[in-house]
Amino acid sequence: MRFVTVKDQDCEFIGLVDDSEKLVLPLKRVWDELEEGFFPNTMLEAVELGDEFIAKVQRLLKNVTSESYIPIDSVTRLAPMTKLRKNILCVGKNYAKHAIEMGSEKDIPKHPIIFTKAPTTVVGHGTEVQNHQDVTSELDYEGELAVIIGKKGSKISREEALDYVFGYTIINDVTARDLQAQHKQFFIGKSLDTSCPIGPWIVHASAIENPHHLEIETKINGEVRQHSNTKNFIFPIDEIIHVLSKGMTLEPGDIIATGTPAGVGKGFNPPRFLKPGDKMEITIEKIGTLVNTISER
Amino acid sequence: MRFVTVKDQDCEFIGLVDDSEKLVLPLKRVWDELEEGFFPNTMLEAVELGDEFIAKVQRLLKNVTSESYIPIDSVTRLAPMTKLRKNILCVGKNYAKHAIEMGSEKDIPKHPIIFTKAPTTVVGHGTEVQNHQDVTSELDYEGELAVIIGKKGSKISREEALDYVFGYTIINDVTARDLQAQHKQFFIGKSLDTSCPIGPWIVHASAIENPHHLEIETKINGEVRQHSNTKNFIFPIDEIIHVLSKGMTLEPGDIIATGTPAGVGKGFNPPRFLKPGDKMEITIEKIGTLVNTISER
Repeated sequence: MRFVTVKDQDCEFIGLVDDSEKLVLPLKRVWDELEEGFFPNTMLEAVELGDEFIAKVQRLLKNVTSESYIPIDSVTRLAPMTKLRKNILCVGKNYAKHAIEMGSEKDIPKHPIIFTKAPTTVVGHGTEVQNHQDVTSELDYEGELAVIIGKKGSKISREEALDYVFGYTIINDVTARDLQAQHKQFFIGKSLDTSCPIGPWIVHASAIENPHHLEIETKINGEVRQHSNTKNFIFPIDEIIHVLSKGMTLEPGDIIATGTPAGVGKGFNPPRFLKPGDKMEITIEKIGTLVNTISER
Repeated sequence: MRFVTVKDQDCEFIGLVDDSEKLVLPLKRVWDELEEGFFPNTMLEAVELGDEFIAKVQRLLKNVTSESYIPIDSVTRLAPMTKLRKNILCVGKNYAKHAIEMGSEKDIPKHPIIFTKAPTTVVGHGTEVQNHQDVTSELDYEGELAVIIGKKGSKISREEALDYVFGYTIINDVTARDLQAQHKQFFIGKSLDTSCPIGPWIVHASAIENPHHLEIETKINGEVRQHSNTKNFIFPIDEIIHVLSKGMTLEPGDIIATGTPAGVGKGFNPPRFLKPGDKMEITIEKIGTLVNTISER
């Protein structure tokens, strides 16, 4: 199951994407026609309902006809989750080769490095990323697998950690390298408006047997820049969840970006930063492709 | 005007604290009795309304009698704002003497250092702070002036920046120094559950003529540990707002902790970290005193 949040005539709703990826089922509208009782309005509410939400969708799918689906191109794509409780959690330097390209072998972390991006950074698949040329001359891309937490928990063991995952999506952790360096802590360089494209959808955890064996690739204007596999994580997802939750309660809807592979613009000599008009495509196996373009102005 | 959020029989509401600091006016309840039209349910809604909220409170104050007030001790104190949109924004090393005690003169920043604390850290005046002895042996206090943003804005000039402030409060930026160092980026060491006491109330900006001339003092078990004045900020509030908003939209309800003076536990030789049962009192001129205790267990 793959979920999007879309907007149709000022009405925002959760949709289920069909196999063709061309049609979307407006879940709540169809639920209200065919069923009774509560159905979530937002993806955050859906994630909070968790298994009950999935059961409701399965029930719905038994009764819908093809006429209930609408063309995905007829609606505006938003980020799969538009309402957040907190900043996006991000793991820094979680692939050894990326840690080395950003410095040297001594930059390979011994403990997870965690920073955050403000919720005001979030945009959806297909939305323009502002070029921010008035504040940065070193805008860079970072393709990443992202985890959506599905259940509240703290002191979560590694063994139980993946039970806390609702689903997976793709994040482009767009970064102003000059601001990241200048301000020491990463937050400012990571929190420019529109610098966190998320999508194209959230894939439910049941569809991804092993999140630690997924090919990941980033293309800029069609040229492959990043190519790796999530098996190369220094800190796998279960360990990230375990470490984060030791003293901090995780909540449904929390988003964790798991870090980016080698091949970012800053890793090249000379660096290859993003320019207005650049097209960024991040593909992760079993999830899909997140496409965004840097604004011309 | 000083605003609290309190809980009375599972009902959470905004209260106006009277001059004696012993009574509180349950604003919405009294509004619904005396007036018509919308009145905000939460402090976040009130801050979003801004000047209109203040005008409504002023209108109310002309008509209420002393019988409308209830004893502040009869209700449960919560953080002045309990519902947040995003993480708390925090300025690191904003007093030169603190930067030096944490390292040396070369640690005095040239650009603001910004990190965040998760919203799950927030507790109110009088609430226990968990000792977290299973994850840290270096729990530390940091008394700070905090700014509540009142209006949405980006690319805010220094000249206009203070117009974007709704009010001021006190934050204790409780920090696990060992985790802060181990994980490089500050987020994990700054985001333990209950590690962000806020209060005792939000003072409306109109009551504080010059936020850059306020005495600030932190006592641990009655002993003064931190004592400074906000005139010693390296980056004053207008500059922090200007820099943050260059590429990131600020929203009403955003909270910015402005950094802590010298005298934190880690600054002593040997360090004087917090122990179970320790009482922390932070006093800021024209605001009040925020009191919290470290849990025994």
